[in-house]
Amino acid sequence: MRIALLQLNPVICDFRRNAHRIAQAAEDAFAQGADICITPELAVMGYPPRDLLLNPKIIENSLHAVKWVAQRTANLGPLLLGAPMGCKGNEGFLANGAFLLNKGKIEACFGKTLLPSYDVFDEQRYFTAHESPGFFDFLGRRIGVTICEDIWNDKDFWEKRRYSVDPVQILADQGVDLILNMSASPFSLGKQKIRLAMLEALAIKYKVPLLFCNQVGGNDDLVFDGRSTAVNERGQITAAGMEFEEDVLIVDLESPERNHVQVHDYSRESETWKALVLGIRDYMAKSGFARALLGLSGGIDSALVAAAAATAAGPENVTGVLMPSKYSSPGSIDDSLELAASLGIRTMNIAIESLVKAYDHSLMPVFLRISKDVTEENIQARIRGNLLMALSNKFGWLVLATGNKSELALGYCTIYGDMCGGLAPLSDTPKTLVYSVARWLNRSEKEVIPRQIITKPPSAELSPGQKDRDTLPDYEVLDQILQMHIEQHLPAEEIIARGFDSDTVFAVISMVKKAEFKRRQSPPGIKITDQAFGTGWRMPLASICSVVTKK
Amino acid sequence: MRIALLQLNPVICDFRRNAHRIAQAAEDAFAQGADICITPELAVMGYPPRDLLLNPKIIENSLHAVKWVAQRTANLGPLLLGAPMGCKGNEGFLANGAFLLNKGKIEACFGKTLLPSYDVFDEQRYFTAHESPGFFDFLGRRIGVTICEDIWNDKDFWEKRRYSVDPVQILADQGVDLILNMSASPFSLGKQKIRLAMLEALAIKYKVPLLFCNQVGGNDDLVFDGRSTAVNERGQITAAGMEFEEDVLIVDLESPERNHVQVHDYSRESETWKALVLGIRDYMAKSGFARALLGLSGGIDSALVAAAAATAAGPENVTGVLMPSKYSSPGSIDDSLELAASLGIRTMNIAIESLVKAYDHSLMPVFLRISKDVTEENIQARIRGNLLMALSNKFGWLVLATGNKSELALGYCTIYGDMCGGLAPLSDTPKTLVYSVARWLNRSEKEVIPRQIITKPPSAELSPGQKDRDTLPDYEVLDQILQMHIEQHLPAEEIIARGFDSDTVFAVISMVKKAEFKRRQSPPGIKITDQAFGTGWRMPLASICSVVTKK
Repeated sequence: MRIALLQLNPVICDFRRNAHRIAQAAEDAFAQGADICITPELAVMGYPPRDLLLNPKIIENSLHAVKWVAQRTANLGPLLLGAPMGCKGNEGFLANGAFLLNKGKIEACFGKTLLPSYDVFDEQRYFTAHESPGFFDFLGRRIGVTICEDIWNDKDFWEKRRYSVDPVQILADQGVDLILNMSASPFSLGKQKIRLAMLEALAIKYKVPLLFCNQVGGNDDLVFDGRSTAVNERGQITAAGMEFEEDVLIVDLESPERNHVQVHDYSRESETWKALVLGIRDYMAKSGFARALLGLSGGIDSALVAAAAATAAGPENVTGVLMPSKYSSPGSIDDSLELAASLGIRTMNIAIESLVKAYDHSLMPVFLRISKDVTEENIQARIRGNLLMALSNKFGWLVLATGNKSELALGYCTIYGDMCGGLAPLSDTPKTLVYSVARWLNRSEKEVIPRQIITKPPSAELSPGQKDRDTLPDYEVLDQILQMHIEQHLPAEEIIARGFDSDTVFAVISMVKKAEFKRRQSPPGIKITDQAFGTGWRMPLASICSVVTKK
Repeated sequence: MRIALLQLNPVICDFRRNAHRIAQAAEDAFAQGADICITPELAVMGYPPRDLLLNPKIIENSLHAVKWVAQRTANLGPLLLGAPMGCKGNEGFLANGAFLLNKGKIEACFGKTLLPSYDVFDEQRYFTAHESPGFFDFLGRRIGVTICEDIWNDKDFWEKRRYSVDPVQILADQGVDLILNMSASPFSLGKQKIRLAMLEALAIKYKVPLLFCNQVGGNDDLVFDGRSTAVNERGQITAAGMEFEEDVLIVDLESPERNHVQVHDYSRESETWKALVLGIRDYMAKSGFARALLGLSGGIDSALVAAAAATAAGPENVTGVLMPSKYSSPGSIDDSLELAASLGIRTMNIAIESLVKAYDHSLMPVFLRISKDVTEENIQARIRGNLLMALSNKFGWLVLATGNKSELALGYCTIYGDMCGGLAPLSDTPKTLVYSVARWLNRSEKEVIPRQIITKPPSAELSPGQKDRDTLPDYEVLDQILQMHIEQHLPAEEIIARGFDSDTVFAVISMVKKAEFKRRQSPPGIKITDQAFGTGWRMPLASICSVVTKK
C-alpha cells in the first residue's frame, strides 16, 4: 500500500486556494501511484484558524470546501481530509475532524480526542473532544486515525501526562495495522527530535507503523516545519519529507526502499534561520506584502533581519533605511552600507538630527531645567519608527521590527520606536542565538554579514558612547537566566542555586515583569523556542508578582 | 444564620495585600454578627491571574496566603476562601478551589466543576475540573458550594448549554438548603439583569436560596461590578451589595428585613461610566501610576476620557495636552480649554506645526513628486503620540489613549499615533455610546462636557475641513452594523436582510478585517460590551476571510 502525506502550506480560511492546492497535490500523488492521500490537521482551513472558528458562515464555507474536494478527487482515490465538523447529537458544537472522502462522497468521519489548551493552543475554546479515535479498513489493513495531540500522551514516554485517555493505546487495543497522524505541529528548536523519539517509542511499543503528516508554512507567529515522517513497526524511519517547504511524501509500506528519506538539519542555527525565512516569507505573502523595509543600525539584529528578509522576499524587494543621529558611529553607517551591498538590498538615508532638534525645541518649555534621561533616547527611537511607518504608508511596504528576544524580555527597546512594525521576526530569538545564526550564515567562504557587525560590542547608540553592557548583564549570562526563567519557568531561588548571581537574577526577573506592557503592544514575532512572548504568553499587566520581590 | 459576602477588590498576585484585606473584611463582618464569611472566586490571587497560575512558586505563595488567613481568622469564625488548590491524586494539576477555614485549620476543600474556556476565559488552560460540587453542614444547614460558571448551565434557563453536567442540579439532588456561589463575573452591559433572572429561576426551580458573592474592581481589560446578591427560595432578592465598589454584605437568612438591598442603576450610560471610572482608577493604582495625561483634541472621545480620568484619579492628577496643527479649528482649542476648566484638570500646549515641517523636510527627498495621502495624516498623529510618550517618560504619567470602539473596529486610527498609551479606556465603547454617556453626564444642571463638543460633527482634523462622515457611514448606522457583526457574529447576508445597505455592510466588514493588525498592537481597553477587542478576541492576522469578499 502506498500512502501519500500531503505536506501543504495553507492560507488561513482561504478555502478556495487551500481546496485547490489539496486537490492538485492529491492528483500528483495518485499519478505517482498512491493508493490513498492524507492531509495535515484542519487542512482545508489552515491551522490555527483561531476565532474564525466561531463564525458559523466560515464553518459552512469549510464544509463546502470539503465537498468540493470530494467532487474533485472523486475519480482519483480516497483522501483523508482535515476540517472542522459538527458534533453528532450536539447541535452547534464542533469537533476537530477528519473526513474520509471516496468516490465523491464522505465515507466516514473521525474526531480529535485530545484537545490541547496550553501554550499557543486553545482547542477547548473551539472544539468538543471525541471520546475515542476511530479507524477504517482499507486494502486489507485496519487503519487508525489520530489528529496531532492524540499521539502525544503515552504514559511511558512522558513523565507527566496531560490527559487520562490515550488514543494510541485505544487503537492498538482495537488491533489496527497502521496509525495515521494528521498534524499541525508548530516548530520550535529541537521539536523534531522529540517527535521522532516519540514516534519510535510508540511504534515499538505497539508494534505498529505510524505516519505523521505535518502542516508546513508560517501563520502569524507560528511556523510549521513539515518534516512529515513514517516509521515502521520497529520504529525505524522509512520516509521523511522536506523541512520548511511543501512536499508530497509517498510512503510505500511494502517497499520502503522506494521512499524518499529527506535528511534534516537539526542544528539550532539552521533551524532558526529556516524558520525565520519561512516565517517572514509567509507573513508577507499571506497578508499581501510584496516588499518590506527595515531600519539598518549597523548592529547584528537588523543585519540578520535584513539577511532573512532578502532571502524570503528577494533582495530587490527589501529596503534598508539608515537613520543616523549624532550618536551614530561612522562605523554604523559604513557597516550598514556594506551589509546592504553584500545582500543586494536597496538603502535609503534619512538623517534624524533635525527632527531630534525639532522635538527638543517643541518640548523645551515643558522640559525646562529638567535633566536629560531615557526620554530623549526614546524620542530618537520613535522618530525612526515614525519615518519607517511613513515609508510603509506611502509605498505599501511591510515594516520589519528588528528587536531580539533578550531585549523584548527586559524591555530594552522603545515602544512605538524600534518596536514599530507589522512583524518582529527576532522576537523569540535570544541575542546569543542571533550571533550564532549570523556566524553560521558566514560559514562558507562568502561573508554574508560583514564581520565587524558580528564582532563589535552591541550598542543602541541613543546616547554618547552607549553600550548594551553598561546597562545589561553580559548576554551569555543574561540569555541563560532568561531561558531558565521564561522557558523553564524556574523560580529565582532555583536559578541562583545553579550558580548565578543573586542580584543579577532578581534584577533580570524584575525587568522582565516590568516590560510586560511593552510586549502586550509588540508586533507578532516568529516562535523559535519552547516559550515565545506571543499567543502562548498571557500575563496580566496590573499585578504584583510576589516572586519578583527580593526578600 | 448570617452569611457575609466579602465583595473585595484584589490586586493580582499581591498575596500580602489581598490576604490582609480578606482578614480585615472578615473581622469587620464577624464584628457585625456574621456566622460565616465567603469570598469571591480565587480571592487570594485576584481574578484573572492568567499565566501566573503556571508558576509553581506563585501557587506555593498562594497556599501560604491561605494558611495565613486561616491563622488570622482562627478566633473569628469560619471563612470560605477562593484559591487555587492541588488536585487529589493528580500531582501537578490545579483546581479552581475553595478552602473552608475554621479555627485556624483547613476543614474542607471544594473545586470548580465547570471551567469556562470562551471569550476572555481560559480556565481549561490552567485547571482540572472537579467531577461534582461539594457541600458542608453548618448550623443545621446543608450548604452547597459552587464557583462562578458552576451555576451558569441550567438546561431550562439557557437555550444552548455548554456543558453536560449541572452542578446546581447535583447539589439540589443532594438536598442542600442553600447554595453559595463564589464568583469573579466580569461586567458587561446588561449582565446583572441576566444574573438576577438566572438566580431567580434557579432558586424557584430548586426551592433553594442562592448567594452570589462577586469580585469587584478593574484588572487590565476586565471590570468586575460586584453587585453581590442573595435571593431566597422564592427567587426574591433579599440582599444586594454595592456596585463597582467594595462591600461587606451581610445576608441574614432568618430576618431578611435586616439586610441591605442596594439599588443598582442599569442604564447603559450609568453602567458604562462607572465601569470606565473604575477601570481607569484600578489600572492606574494597580500598576503604580498616580497621574495620567491625554491628548485633548476638542472632540468627544478625549473629552469623555478626560472626564472619567479626572473622576478616577482626581482632576489634579490629570493633564490634558493640546497639540494643535494648522488643521485644528480654533473651536477645538477653545473647547479643550473650556473642558479642562470645567473638569479642573491642567493643560499643556505644544503646537506640532514645526514638527510636521521637519518631517516634511526630512522625507522630501524620498517623497519627491508623490502626492500627499494618508501618510501625512498619520505623521501628525504619530508626532502627537511621540510627544505624549515623551511627557510620560519624563514625568512618569500614564498615557490614556482616547480612541473609541467604532474607530478601532474600522482601523480609523493611527497605530503608534493616537493609539499610543498604557490604557485605551474607550476601546470597547462605541461612538454612539460615547455620545450618550457624555449627554448623560451633563444631565444635571452642571455642564460637565461643554455642549459644543457634543454637538459639533466629529473630525480627526488631520486634513483641511476633514469630517468623519466624509469617510465613514453615519455612526448610528455604523454602530448597529458593528454590533451585529462583532457582538452577535452575524454574517453579512443576515445583516443586509435586516435592512442595511449591502455595499455599506461589506465595506464595514472588510474594514474590520483589515484593521486586525492595528488591534493586535493596541493598548488594553476596558470591556463594556459582550465582545470586546481584548483578551477575548483572538483573530489570525495573515488570513483570507472568505465571508468578507463580496460575491
